[in-house]
Amino acid sequence: MSTYIPIDSLKPGPWLDAIAWNEQGLVPVIAQEHGSKDILMMAWMNRDALLETLRLGEAVYWTRSRQKLWHKGEESGHTQTVREIRLDCDGDTILLVVDQKDGIACHTGEHSCFFQKWDSENRTWIDESLGAA
Amino acid sequence: MSTYIPIDSLKPGPWLDAIAWNEQGLVPVIAQEHGSKDILMMAWMNRDALLETLRLGEAVYWTRSRQKLWHKGEESGHTQTVREIRLDCDGDTILLVVDQKDGIACHTGEHSCFFQKWDSENRTWIDESLGAA
Repeated sequence: MSTYIPIDSLKPGPWLDAIAWNEQGLVPVIAQEHGSKDILMMAWMNRDALLETLRLGEAVYWTRSRQKLWHKGEESGHTQTVREIRLDCDGDTILLVVDQKDGIACHTGEHSCFFQKWDSENRTWIDESLGAA
Repeated sequence: MSTYIPIDSLKPGPWLDAIAWNEQGLVPVIAQEHGSKDILMMAWMNRDALLETLRLGEAVYWTRSRQKLWHKGEESGHTQTVREIRLDCDGDTILLVVDQKDGIACHTGEHSCFFQKWDSENRTWIDESLGAA
């Protein structure tokens, strides 16, 4: 799998309508690490975020809390370089395969955001983050 | 990693409030195959769906189109046995690690729902499903 090639001149087109944007104009995006295949995080994109992602070749999301485009890593430096972009059967979820800069995707400093694990014996979530150790 | 142990007598508790249910009372769920680490699909759960999943030890989702609980595989036979359940840092996405019966997760008969791949050269989505070959 070769590295994704950024497209400077990309314009909206029918390919953008293949995506089943929800009523807020958003689509959920799963970020998976290339190589390890670890699931790093889940975020959202609107049309502009996807266009920016394709232009830059780095993940750009839409933050629902701050209501703006969010070039992942713009503050932390933990950018995500796109390797592959996939769409599911009904077009309502995007899968982004990325190289995660420094191996850190989560704002907590963890590799992955999914560091809480269900403990069926004790019926609770266990925090498996490094900070909790 | 041992197989998840189903809990017959599970009742709602504070652990259920650790999840940031959205305004429709739903949370997105990523299903990842144990072993291969392939991402199989993305679906939704409400509280009842999660309770049923934990009780059965098999994935039970909430279908937004049919507005009811959906025991994955109830018709196709392609059930998902739960190996691990994870929650992300802000509690608004669940990761389900599963054994996929027959290796088929998608209603199209594909292994994974993410069989459409972005082709940056031709600026289109390529259908990589077996049926498209």
